[in-house]
Amino acid sequence: MTAHVYKITEVVGSSTISMEDAIKTAVHEASQTLRHLRWFEVTETRGHINEGVVAHWQVTLKIGFTMEPEGANK
Amino acid sequence: MTAHVYKITEVVGSSTISMEDAIKTAVHEASQTLRHLRWFEVTETRGHINEGVVAHWQVTLKIGFTMEPEGANK
Amino acid sequence: MTAHVYKITEVVGSSTISMEDAIKTAVHEASQTLRHLRWFEVTETRGHINEGVVAHWQVTLKIGFTMEPEGANK
Amino acid sequence: MTAHVYKITEVVGSSTISMEDAIKTAVHEASQTLRHLRWFEVTETRGHINEGVVAHWQVTLKIGFTMEPEGANK
Amino acid sequence: MTAHVYKITEVVGSSTISMEDAIKTAVHEASQTLRHLRWFEVTETRGHINEGVVAHWQVTLKIGFTMEPEGANK
Amino acid sequence: MTAHVYKITEVVGSSTISMEDAIKTAVHEASQTLRHLRWFEVTETRGHINEGVVAHWQVTLKIGFTMEPEGANK
Amino acid sequence: MTAHVYKITEVVGSSTISMEDAIKTAVHEASQTLRHLRWFEVTETRGHINEGVVAHWQVTLKIGFTMEPEGANK
Amino acid sequence: MTAHVYKITEVVGSSTISMEDAIKTAVHEASQTLRHLRWFEVTETRGHINEGVVAHWQVTLKIGFTMEPEGANK
Amino acid sequence: MTAHVYKITEVVGSSTISMEDAIKTAVHEASQTLRHLRWFEVTETRGHINEGVVAHWQVTLKIGFTMEPEGANK
Amino acid sequence: MTAHVYKITEVVGSSTISMEDAIKTAVHEASQTLRHLRWFEVTETRGHINEGVVAHWQVTLKIGFTMEPEGANK
Amino acid sequence: MTAHVYKITEVVGSSTISMEDAIKTAVHEASQTLRHLRWFEVTETRGHINEGVVAHWQVTLKIGFTMEPEGANK
Amino acid sequence: MTAHVYKITEVVGSSTISMEDAIKTAVHEASQTLRHLRWFEVTETRGHINEGVVAHWQVTLKIGFTMEPEGANK
Repeated sequence: MTAHVYKITEVVGSSTISMEDAIKTAVHEASQTLRHLRWFEVTETRGHINEGVVAHWQVTLKIGFTMEPEGANK
Repeated sequence: MTAHVYKITEVVGSSTISMEDAIKTAVHEASQTLRHLRWFEVTETRGHINEGVVAHWQVTLKIGFTMEPEGANK
Repeated sequence: MTAHVYKITEVVGSSTISMEDAIKTAVHEASQTLRHLRWFEVTETRGHINEGVVAHWQVTLKIGFTMEPEGANK
Repeated sequence: MTAHVYKITEVVGSSTISMEDAIKTAVHEASQTLRHLRWFEVTETRGHINEGVVAHWQVTLKIGFTMEPEGANK
Repeated sequence: MTAHVYKITEVVGSSTISMEDAIKTAVHEASQTLRHLRWFEVTETRGHINEGVVAHWQVTLKIGFTMEPEGANK
Repeated sequence: MTAHVYKITEVVGSSTISMEDAIKTAVHEASQTLRHLRWFEVTETRGHINEGVVAHWQVTLKIGFTMEPEGANK
Repeated sequence: MTAHVYKITEVVGSSTISMEDAIKTAVHEASQTLRHLRWFEVTETRGHINEGVVAHWQVTLKIGFTMEPEGANK
Repeated sequence: MTAHVYKITEVVGSSTISMEDAIKTAVHEASQTLRHLRWFEVTETRGHINEGVVAHWQVTLKIGFTMEPEGANK
Repeated sequence: MTAHVYKITEVVGSSTISMEDAIKTAVHEASQTLRHLRWFEVTETRGHINEGVVAHWQVTLKIGFTMEPEGANK
Repeated sequence: MTAHVYKITEVVGSSTISMEDAIKTAVHEASQTLRHLRWFEVTETRGHINEGVVAHWQVTLKIGFTMEPEGANK
Repeated sequence: MTAHVYKITEVVGSSTISMEDAIKTAVHEASQTLRHLRWFEVTETRGHINEGVVAHWQVTLKIGFTMEPEGANK
Repeated sequence: MTAHVYKITEVVGSSTISMEDAIKTAVHEASQTLRHLRWFEVTETRGHINEGVVAHWQVTLKIGFTMEPEGANK
C-alpha cells in the first residue's frame, strides 16, 4: 500500500438558512478549485445578528483533500 | 474613526426542534433586554434525552453587542 | 436525597441528512443497549465529502446515563 | 413545552476555609441579586499564599440562571 | 516485564456534602462492577443550586483500571 | 478577614493604534458603568484588515471587579 | 446508505520498547474483546522513569469501533 | 444576499520592534499575493532571545480573506 | 513603582485526606526552599485508588513567587 | 536584520511503518511543491485499524516555510 | 550533530508601560541568573486596574534556554 | 503513609533519530542534575526541516521527580 498525504485547507462558509447550509456552501466553493476533497471538521460556529435575529450562520471548517487521482479512503 | 467597545453576554438557548432553533431562541430572548446585538459564537452544544430520544437541544452562545446607536460593524 | 452516579459513554452518529439526524441516530442506537439515558454533549463535528458534496455528517457525542430506575434529573 | 433561555454569569468566590466554602460564598452572593440560580461550573481554582501557607482559596464559577418564575429544571 | 493495558471509564459522582464526597461516591459505585481500579482524574466540576444554595456537587472523573489480577502499579 | 466575591465581565475593545490602546479603551469604557475594577485577562486578539493594512486591533478581555467599596486586593 | 454508529473506548497501552509498540499493545488488547475496531486517536503520551532511564512508554488512545458485521469505512 | 466563503491562511510575522509590527509585517506580506484580506486572529506569540535581550518578536496569525471583488463585510 | 518579576514553579502535592490538604502539603513543601510565595493555580486533580477507595488525592499546582524581599502584591 | 514572514501549511502524512515515517512522508511530499521548509509541529496522531492491528499511522502536521531564498533560521 | 537539551522556565514580567516592556523585563530578569536564553512563548496576558485605568501589564512567558556554551539555534 | 510532594520540570529533548530518542535524551540530561525522576508527559512534538528532510526531532516533556530517597510510586 502506498503512503498517502492529505492536505488541509481552512474555510468559512456562510448561509442565511442553517449551519448545514453554511458547511455545504464552503465545501462546494472549495470543490471549485480543489479536487479530491475527502473530509471536513468543524472548528468554529459563529453568526451575525441583525435587528435581533440571526442574519448569517458562519461555520469554520478544516477540509482534507488529496492530490491522488483515485481511491484514498480515510 | 471612533473606538468601539463591545460587550459579551453568555446565554443558553433550548429548543425541542433543532440546534438552529435553540440559537434563535437565545438570540431572540437576549434581544428583549439588549439592543444592538452584533454576533454570536457557539461554545457548547448539549441536550437532554427522555425515553431514548432527544427531548431538548441546548446551545450555549456568547453574544456580542454594543451600546452605540449606530453603525458599528464587525 | 441519595447520591447519584452517572456513567458516560462516547459514540459517533452519522447521517446523510443533517447534524441533528446524526445525533438522533447515535442516541437511538445507544438506547438499544443502555436504559436511562439522560443528556448528551457534542465533542466533535466532522463529515465525509464525496464528489464535492457532503456525503455524511458525523457527530461525536458523550452520553450520560444512570443505572437507577427512576427520577434522577440533571 | 416552552423554550427556556438560561443566562450565565461568571463570579469568583474566595474563602479562608476551603474550596467548597469559596464556591458557596460565590453562589450566596450571586443569589442576593439574581433569582432562579440553577447550576454552576468551576472554571478555575487559584489561591493566595501568605507566610508560606494558603491564605485564601479563590474559585471561579460560571453560574446559570433563568428569569422564569417556575419549574425550569436542567 | 509484561505490557499492561489499562482501560478508562468516565463517570459523574454527586454528593450533597463536598467535592471529595462526590468523587468517593463515583469511585465506590464504579468499584461495584469493575475490579482493579487504579487511578482517577477530575475532568469537570459542576453542581446544582436550589433556593440560592448549592444542592449537589457533581464531579466528572476518568477512572483507570486493569483486567489483570495483580501487581500493575502506575 | 471577610470573604470577597468578584464578578467578571467580558468586553472587546478596539483601536486603530495598538493592542494596548484597545485594552485601555475597553477598560475605560467598562469603568464608566462599573466601579472597583481590579484586573483583566486577555482571551482573544483579533483585528480587521482594510486595503492590505491593519485597520483595527480588537482585544477581548475578561475584567474582574467587586461591589465592595474598599480594600479588596487581589 | 444506512446510518452507522461508532462507539469509542479509551485505553492506555504500555511498552518498554517504543510509543508505537505501546499503541499496538493497546489495540491488540482491545481486539480481544471488541470486534470491528476501525481507528484510534492518541490523547496523551506519558511514561515512567526508573534509575534515570525511560522504563515504560504509556500512550492513551481513543479507539473507534462498530457493532456492524461489515463494510463501515471511515 | 449571496453566500460568502472566506478562506483562512496561517502566517508568522517577525519584527525586531514590537508585536504590532510583527503582525503588520505578516499582513503586508500576505497582501502581496492575496487580495481582499478581511481579518486576522493571533494564535501564538513567541520570540527569540539573543545575548539576554529580545531579538525578534514572532506572532502567528490566521488571516481571513475572500475571492469576491466587493462588499463582503464580516 | 518598580517592575516586578514573578517566577512560577510546578509541584504535585498528595494527601490521604482531601484536595485542600494536598494543596497545603505542596505549598508547605515549596515554602521550605522558596521564600515569598504569592499565589497558586490548580492545573490538574488526580488520585490513586486502592481496594476500591481513594487512597491519595494528588493535585498539581503552579506556584508563583518573587525574589523581592517585600511588598509585591498581586 | 530584515523582517521574515513564514507561512504555515497543514498536512497529514500516513505510513504503514511508524509515526516518524508518517511525518517524513508528509515532509517529503510538501517539499515537492514548497521550497524552504523550516519546521513542523505535530497537531494530531491517529491511525486506522484493520483486522485488529494498526494498518496506518496518520500524523497531522503544521509545516512552516518561507519564500526567502536564503538564511532564515528559526 | 550532537543532541541538544533545552530547559524551560516560566516567569511573569510586569510593567506600567506596555506588554512588550513586561516581556523585556521578564527576559532581562531571567538573564541575570540563567545564561544562553534562546526563545520565549507568551502563555497568558493579564493586568491590574487601578482607579479605572490599567496600572500594570502582566505577561506570563515560558523561556527556553540551554546549558551549552555555544551555537544551539532553534 | 506520608504525604509526597513531586516537583515538575519542563525540558525539550532533540534527536536526529526518532521521537523516542529525543525523549530519552531529555530524560538522560535531566537525570544528570536531578535524582529520583519518576514520570514524564509529552506536551509538544516539533522538529526542524533542512533540505526537505527532517533534521531534528524536538519533544517537549514535563518530568516529575521527588526529593525523597525512596519508595514514592506513582
